[in-house]
Amino acid sequence: MAVVGTGLIGTSVGLAVSRHGVTVHLVDRDETAARTAAALGAGVLDAPRGPVDLAVLAVPPSQLGPVLAEQQLRGLARAYTDVASVKSAPERHVLAGLADASSYVGGHPLAGREKSGPLAARAGLFEDRSWVLTPSEATSRETLNRALEMISLCGAVPVLMGSREHDAAVALTSHVPHVLASLMAARLQHAPREASRLAGQGLRDVTRIAAGDARLWGDILRSNAAAVAGVLREVQADLADVLAALTELSAAPADGGAPGLDGVVGLLDRGIAGMSAIQGRGGAPAAGPVRLRVALGDRPGELARLLASLADLGVGADDVTPRSSGGTGLDVELAVAALTAEDVRRRLVRDGFASADPADGPAQQRAAAGGVLTGATP
Amino acid sequence: MAVVGTGLIGTSVGLAVSRHGVTVHLVDRDETAARTAAALGAGVLDAPRGPVDLAVLAVPPSQLGPVLAEQQLRGLARAYTDVASVKSAPERHVLAGLADASSYVGGHPLAGREKSGPLAARAGLFEDRSWVLTPSEATSRETLNRALEMISLCGAVPVLMGSREHDAAVALTSHVPHVLASLMAARLQHAPREASRLAGQGLRDVTRIAAGDARLWGDILRSNAAAVAGVLREVQADLADVLAALTELSAAPADGGAPGLDGVVGLLDRGIAGMSAIQGRGGAPAAGPVRLRVALGDRPGELARLLASLADLGVGADDVTPRSSGGTGLDVELAVAALTAEDVRRRLVRDGFASADPADGPAQQRAAAGGVLTGATP
Repeated sequence: MAVVGTGLIGTSVGLAVSRHGVTVHLVDRDETAARTAAALGAGVLDAPRGPVDLAVLAVPPSQLGPVLAEQQLRGLARAYTDVASVKSAPERHVLAGLADASSYVGGHPLAGREKSGPLAARAGLFEDRSWVLTPSEATSRETLNRALEMISLCGAVPVLMGSREHDAAVALTSHVPHVLASLMAARLQHAPREASRLAGQGLRDVTRIAAGDARLWGDILRSNAAAVAGVLREVQADLADVLAALTELSAAPADGGAPGLDGVVGLLDRGIAGMSAIQGRGGAPAAGPVRLRVALGDRPGELARLLASLADLGVGADDVTPRSSGGTGLDVELAVAALTAEDVRRRLVRDGFASADPADGPAQQRAAAGGVLTGATP
Repeated sequence: MAVVGTGLIGTSVGLAVSRHGVTVHLVDRDETAARTAAALGAGVLDAPRGPVDLAVLAVPPSQLGPVLAEQQLRGLARAYTDVASVKSAPERHVLAGLADASSYVGGHPLAGREKSGPLAARAGLFEDRSWVLTPSEATSRETLNRALEMISLCGAVPVLMGSREHDAAVALTSHVPHVLASLMAARLQHAPREASRLAGQGLRDVTRIAAGDARLWGDILRSNAAAVAGVLREVQADLADVLAALTELSAAPADGGAPGLDGVVGLLDRGIAGMSAIQGRGGAPAAGPVRLRVALGDRPGELARLLASLADLGVGADDVTPRSSGGTGLDVELAVAALTAEDVRRRLVRDGFASADPADGPAQQRAAAGGVLTGATP
């Protein structure tokens, strides 16, 4: 194999693949970078005697076209892939006949760090991460299979997509988030000293990715400028709306109505909906939980005692819904996985909790220690 | 003590203070919430017999003024503080004579979770977090001391600030980040299914706080609308600039120049500068490290061997700067804490690494195992 470009990604590929005994030839215009990668164990510096099976071009997106054409002319490898986070532009280059199209498949590993350069590389960087491949119509099956094998050696999960589809997706999930993180971080540049004492995890999370290499990210945004601008224009429209709403609110008297509040809350609600749209996908639907209702009475700390009693059975505060008991005490409803429901029931009886399930007879309801608890599957 | 409002923050205060044996009286219009807090061990539900030492009003910002006036009329406590994340508006209420100003000090613990309600509460929520107090000119020293004691029982770090100064700071460090996270998350609402496979840690970090309670956050943004709008207008101007630059770039031919690239990279650079502005503050300047230069030669994996050799001495990849050796090998410079430099030197000698320090004589330079390494403090 060959790796052209021994920065963070290229060196990590070299480290990951070398673990499996594959010889990796390292190429970089920056000799110190190549030597550093070799010294880390990512591969060897001498040129291969003949074409290698696969060359991974880990160069900035704007250099990809020329480097691919150059290495194909030299006959470095039988197949080529790249790691650039934008895919339509290189594909256009290839398909325009600048290079042999059958031996190239676009690639993009969804992995990275804020740090760059070979010293930031890790053999495990790609483990369990998605690695997109964007085969064109011209890409040969042999080329695709070589790239798939390399991805598998890196421990990543291959995802096949069209290049335009990929670029629209990363504009949304990676490039626009980066711009927004930078927009926020730029506001901190002249922040008063006191503000830094109030900086919490929220701000750190929102801005974290803004620490990335500005040249590299400028290059990425340039290569995907149209798709990024499209999403940012929608952000711009939302921002204008929320600013108008806030301006209205700031002009309103404190104890009057709240004109504009709906506009602000509406955006926040859409944000919450958007998060569940990416979080809720892909997982198998969970089996409906069994619901157990427990009468806690009004002794302080009873809910804490209940949670402590059930902690080792995997029941936590998230599984508890408080219900009014009608009387002076508190009832809670526990949502328990069907598989552990019987264990939970036994534990509750053992620890003296009483069922508040209306399906239970009066003997069980609000019974003292030893009462029988029943649950209903909705 | 009394806690009015047994949501996430109020219940957590109750749990934290109760640990120290202080009796906490819990008050909430929502009886189930109050019972839940009591059942968790945050305090008791019966009313205090006389005024308590301190009442913490943990109600939404828009209700703070009325609740404070009401509880002062009832004589619930000798001193009052609140936990609202906006401070000028309540202070205006108090100073306008709606309530006794000497017994009130504004407060804001810099702690929270995406979850809300008493069940999300934790006794350790405030540990080592900043807790701002914004005493007005009217605030009595006795009131301030009671609030300081409560903060100390919660394990938090008190920070005294003016209320306007506080509101400007949180607009920047908390409220605007929230709006930007929501703006990003709102874009995901109608994202194509494939995009979710590409969602990585960066996107999750940028949007994480957007999951917060929309009503509560609407209330917070409303209370600080002017300051938030001020910062957002600056964001809007930057966004317009970066959009113009991206539009220019997307219209430019692929192999032509890159008009607009400077505008994009300029924003990214300002973002990086902004991050270092909040990260670099507060810490004591580290003692200058000792620099050791090691000649690694050109055997593959030598740098990995060096890092493995020094790992238990706390030297990692971050402390390594590759240097060209002039020859075919690689030199690296190690930045080592002055205190451990001697240990590092001994280890390097033991494991057969050679000094590349020009200050060393030819006998030491590029010597085999046993060579003496020297370092220079810059």
